[in-house]
Amino acid sequence: MNRQKRLRDYGVRIGRLETGVKNRITDVSGVRVGHCTIAHEGAQTGVTAVVPHQGNTFQEKVIASSHVLNGFGKTLGTVQLNELGTLETPILLTNTLSVGTVTKGLIEYILEHNHDIGETTGTVNPVVGECNDMLINSIRNASVSKEDVLEAIEESSTQFEEGAVGAGRGMVCYGLKGGIGSSSRLIHLDHDTYTIGVLVLANFGQMEDLMINGSRVGQSLKEKMDQNDEPDRGSIMMIVATDLPVTERQLNRMIKRTSTGLARTGSTISHGSGDIAIGFSTATKIPHYKPTTLLSIPSVHEEDLNAAFRAVGEATEEAILNALVTAESVPLRDGRIAMSLIEAIEEHGLSLT
Amino acid sequence: MNRQKRLRDYGVRIGRLETGVKNRITDVSGVRVGHCTIAHEGAQTGVTAVVPHQGNTFQEKVIASSHVLNGFGKTLGTVQLNELGTLETPILLTNTLSVGTVTKGLIEYILEHNHDIGETTGTVNPVVGECNDMLINSIRNASVSKEDVLEAIEESSTQFEEGAVGAGRGMVCYGLKGGIGSSSRLIHLDHDTYTIGVLVLANFGQMEDLMINGSRVGQSLKEKMDQNDEPDRGSIMMIVATDLPVTERQLNRMIKRTSTGLARTGSTISHGSGDIAIGFSTATKIPHYKPTTLLSIPSVHEEDLNAAFRAVGEATEEAILNALVTAESVPLRDGRIAMSLIEAIEEHGLSLT
Amino acid sequence: MNRQKRLRDYGVRIGRLETGVKNRITDVSGVRVGHCTIAHEGAQTGVTAVVPHQGNTFQEKVIASSHVLNGFGKTLGTVQLNELGTLETPILLTNTLSVGTVTKGLIEYILEHNHDIGETTGTVNPVVGECNDMLINSIRNASVSKEDVLEAIEESSTQFEEGAVGAGRGMVCYGLKGGIGSSSRLIHLDHDTYTIGVLVLANFGQMEDLMINGSRVGQSLKEKMDQNDEPDRGSIMMIVATDLPVTERQLNRMIKRTSTGLARTGSTISHGSGDIAIGFSTATKIPHYKPTTLLSIPSVHEEDLNAAFRAVGEATEEAILNALVTAESVPLRDGRIAMSLIEAIEEHGLSLT
Amino acid sequence: MNRQKRLRDYGVRIGRLETGVKNRITDVSGVRVGHCTIAHEGAQTGVTAVVPHQGNTFQEKVIASSHVLNGFGKTLGTVQLNELGTLETPILLTNTLSVGTVTKGLIEYILEHNHDIGETTGTVNPVVGECNDMLINSIRNASVSKEDVLEAIEESSTQFEEGAVGAGRGMVCYGLKGGIGSSSRLIHLDHDTYTIGVLVLANFGQMEDLMINGSRVGQSLKEKMDQNDEPDRGSIMMIVATDLPVTERQLNRMIKRTSTGLARTGSTISHGSGDIAIGFSTATKIPHYKPTTLLSIPSVHEEDLNAAFRAVGEATEEAILNALVTAESVPLRDGRIAMSLIEAIEEHGLSLT
Repeated sequence: MNRQKRLRDYGVRIGRLETGVKNRITDVSGVRVGHCTIAHEGAQTGVTAVVPHQGNTFQEKVIASSHVLNGFGKTLGTVQLNELGTLETPILLTNTLSVGTVTKGLIEYILEHNHDIGETTGTVNPVVGECNDMLINSIRNASVSKEDVLEAIEESSTQFEEGAVGAGRGMVCYGLKGGIGSSSRLIHLDHDTYTIGVLVLANFGQMEDLMINGSRVGQSLKEKMDQNDEPDRGSIMMIVATDLPVTERQLNRMIKRTSTGLARTGSTISHGSGDIAIGFSTATKIPHYKPTTLLSIPSVHEEDLNAAFRAVGEATEEAILNALVTAESVPLRDGRIAMSLIEAIEEHGLSLT
Repeated sequence: MNRQKRLRDYGVRIGRLETGVKNRITDVSGVRVGHCTIAHEGAQTGVTAVVPHQGNTFQEKVIASSHVLNGFGKTLGTVQLNELGTLETPILLTNTLSVGTVTKGLIEYILEHNHDIGETTGTVNPVVGECNDMLINSIRNASVSKEDVLEAIEESSTQFEEGAVGAGRGMVCYGLKGGIGSSSRLIHLDHDTYTIGVLVLANFGQMEDLMINGSRVGQSLKEKMDQNDEPDRGSIMMIVATDLPVTERQLNRMIKRTSTGLARTGSTISHGSGDIAIGFSTATKIPHYKPTTLLSIPSVHEEDLNAAFRAVGEATEEAILNALVTAESVPLRDGRIAMSLIEAIEEHGLSLT
Repeated sequence: MNRQKRLRDYGVRIGRLETGVKNRITDVSGVRVGHCTIAHEGAQTGVTAVVPHQGNTFQEKVIASSHVLNGFGKTLGTVQLNELGTLETPILLTNTLSVGTVTKGLIEYILEHNHDIGETTGTVNPVVGECNDMLINSIRNASVSKEDVLEAIEESSTQFEEGAVGAGRGMVCYGLKGGIGSSSRLIHLDHDTYTIGVLVLANFGQMEDLMINGSRVGQSLKEKMDQNDEPDRGSIMMIVATDLPVTERQLNRMIKRTSTGLARTGSTISHGSGDIAIGFSTATKIPHYKPTTLLSIPSVHEEDLNAAFRAVGEATEEAILNALVTAESVPLRDGRIAMSLIEAIEEHGLSLT
Repeated sequence: MNRQKRLRDYGVRIGRLETGVKNRITDVSGVRVGHCTIAHEGAQTGVTAVVPHQGNTFQEKVIASSHVLNGFGKTLGTVQLNELGTLETPILLTNTLSVGTVTKGLIEYILEHNHDIGETTGTVNPVVGECNDMLINSIRNASVSKEDVLEAIEESSTQFEEGAVGAGRGMVCYGLKGGIGSSSRLIHLDHDTYTIGVLVLANFGQMEDLMINGSRVGQSLKEKMDQNDEPDRGSIMMIVATDLPVTERQLNRMIKRTSTGLARTGSTISHGSGDIAIGFSTATKIPHYKPTTLLSIPSVHEEDLNAAFRAVGEATEEAILNALVTAESVPLRDGRIAMSLIEAIEEHGLSLT
């Protein structure tokens, strides 16, 4: 994997807070990300897996929450995730019509590692999110297979590519090539330093709206590129990981702040967009089997959340911009091109700053 | 199909309101129900389809809402259904680990009938609910296929069996054989008479709790049958259909009242239960493609909802009891039997009334 | 205070679980209840206070949650209670149009005991619930004063009257005299025995629907009393207290089960009813001022909640029936009488069992 | 009233869309705004009324919805507003501890104009929002009276002042003087042109975060003013009015987009902030008394909402900036000054653009 140039490599720095070492969601200890990228004639799509920790996620669940900014999407698994406040599988991302297949693959993966499910214990709640990549990918072809799910999970690592890879392969964002992006922030509290990481699957927005750190780059680009704005039928999945000790209610408050970062890139959270945030905290593992003693959930005082709210907003904003900055150009199905932001900017003599 | 004996055939009458002609969800004009039942060595499960109207459900959507009483379940499609207030596919019910496969089958069915999806228009939001039938069915075997989805939809009719059929094949309710049940009510308002129908997939509860029209039949049965109460890991899916003109907010208020009927059969809405209601009204069709004029949504005045609330509670209560009354005995995987309520009652010299 | 005869004194026993010593919400250690009853010409109303613990509730908050079964009501304070998951004042109950006055009185009470509010720390979130007692009380007269709030709080005790007292003075339930009722349950878990108590302000329902432990007493009464059913414009406030160690999400799951007890008394949760549950757990105190260390929230495993769910349902059902059983007859404003259930039953030769 | 200089008078133009004639919430036909400003020794506070239409709001309700971005606040009336989807009183805004008094005043106002309430019909649901102005105002003094409520309502007009007036008198925003601000947008759809107006009570944020149309004015100001950032204990109430024909679900989608405008001024939606949006549409009046015929709710097709979403975001952003631009300097209680943005900028040789 060649090192990709990211937003900060172009001199743009989002927000006030310090980033983690990798400036990625995998700065949260134990979190790994893997892709399976499908890129051949008639299929430009894929699968991305966010693995919350390196143990057995079904036996040791992490505290989790989801929040729907706009529900034009069909993420699976959030009903139970919100009821119980836990995540018990990797989170899988894919294209809109592959939710069924990826769910099937994820269930098979979990069954293989948990022989008690369906025998001596109940069922499992797979979590699968999606965006619609139909501008680039022929979604009717159902190109994703169960095996692709396994590959994404098994390939997962603390290092991972961004841009037009995995589930991001066919995504379009602000009229440019979108896809996978990530960023992270550190927050220093009295008791410790904690990490908050975000990974996005960015597939939304109209070019004219794109803002980079307050600068209306999209407007300038649109004037140069002379492109018509098309209806925004995209979506964004935003995965927030942290090692901050929080209850699921506190975590829910945190992931709602993805909206601030999203808005600062220019989003109007349009009608046709499935804008959905899912978060988890690795600070506490909830055992599947009931112990005979009480659980104890460490959690920050509510006032400590201010730093976390800022971190989520900043990391979300930078993750979206990283998706744009790292994505290479890919042809649209109608013959036009979903241009890389960097190429577009260079071609038209503009700058990110 | 032999005519099944139902609750009223045993002289039990739930509530004050008049039923529809068939006393089924299909009393709502246009609604059809179909099953695909899988019953062979190692597989006792199936698929049930509730088809909201006989036109193209994607092109002409019905007003819809969902409500989670307890979210230990993984129903797909409620995020978008609640955001947009519409249902655009049949509702499919199946066993817990077949959600992925059934989603895939439902998507294929919709794509086949809508060539614009993924080409000139966006994606589709399949709605798939589930309960866990692992006491009877080997859920790890993944016995449901895409073809079973098509069969359930194509077989759909205004007449349909109840009990141990379709998705209900492997379900257990109050320690007895559960499954599919249905009932309906008529409400007479100033402007017209309207129908409210309910279909349940009943798979929850402990025997001791079962109440039939106020009578503690479950307690009596348990004493006679000398059975241990087991943890309740079941669920109930409750589908509410109506021709009452309502907004999605009003419909949401209506379907929340499934809780009253559910509670009156004895449910404590236990932790391990996915108790989820999905409702739709056929009174208004919302076009997929934007017209150039305003839509007009006919709706009842809020005070008219009182009759509808009562109807939903009564029909839910009777639908659950119909599932119990119609279901035949089926062996559990551990060698015991999920007994038919009627057989159990007769064997132990008890009565329903 | 003369000892009032309650439901169990008439031989009716609701549910399977054991009650606390007092069979009241005050079986939860630290919880106290006080009334201010206003009963004179033109005013039949009052205030009831539920005090969550005997320390400073603002400095030491309890974990709390609220749930709206039907929102035709104007309870104050649930927005912040749900956002932060804590309760920081006594819960006050009163009549519908006195919410403003009681809020004002409660704020004054809290300010008097907390000199930092509005000076060195922020604001306080009073919690005030209401039902509409207009059938008995002239709500336009605004008979409740700030002083009544103080009296209710100061008079609070572990012993308290039920029926036509405090906020319950003017309430009507199932066409009979309603008001304040309470009950409690014990649950035995591996780690300890815990108490769950419920207090209701019962002001809802039509006589014909009243069920007592499965018996359709309301129907029999209505036939005897030859009374017209009137539109149900009532409400019920349900306060759940516990010493069970739970997170606010778990507590929210618990208080949703008030619906099962409510339904089993016959409620259809009618349109005009504000049916609202507020719960708190005294197991953890959350400090107002941020400590330098992490908090630790003890909590039960999710599977332990099944017992708690059952307890909430049973105690809610019995609390409602206790309100009916203890309430004396009070004249309605239109000249008729809101009859005591016991008097009505005796007069018409019926029984509760 | 001298004409106040507003954001556009300084050459700053937010967004793409055209404003209404007055660029205020009162561009929506029928909407009026009134203030009662209290400014004397020890009291810098007030009341602001947003009157939804000029008929009887109780008899003819408007479609309404509310959305909590962050619930550290105690807005009264949203429980019923969301359950029924209607607003039946003016919306009153005031300081945090005056919610009780203002509720009482609003109830008296409504009772005076509706003699049926509490007699032949039920109760009324007052809507009262608040922010905490304790940095400027002595909230413990309870300076607001019932009469102030009447004054605000009676003084209401299509012309109204912004800045340090009414409920905005004591508010602080981004470390500068905040208060009341407003803006509006027009959207042109196939069937007609519609207006969307926003009024905010702005009382949140840290100076360093303030962005004006993408420019980091707050950062520059903070460096010049050498001020410490203090914890953000503020709030923002956002009132959205429109004549767009929408259902309450569609309206709810609209008002959620206040978050995009809020975020683009720099907000992190901090923990201590009650960030609450309330919206109403005047397009449909819902009668209090049930007619014998069905209602008909005109509504736009979902795809038309994209323009409305953009309008809400733009108008919210500009309304917040209008609050800052119009507010005069007012002393803080600690002796410092809540400076007017314009004065601060001029003093330090900065510019808005």
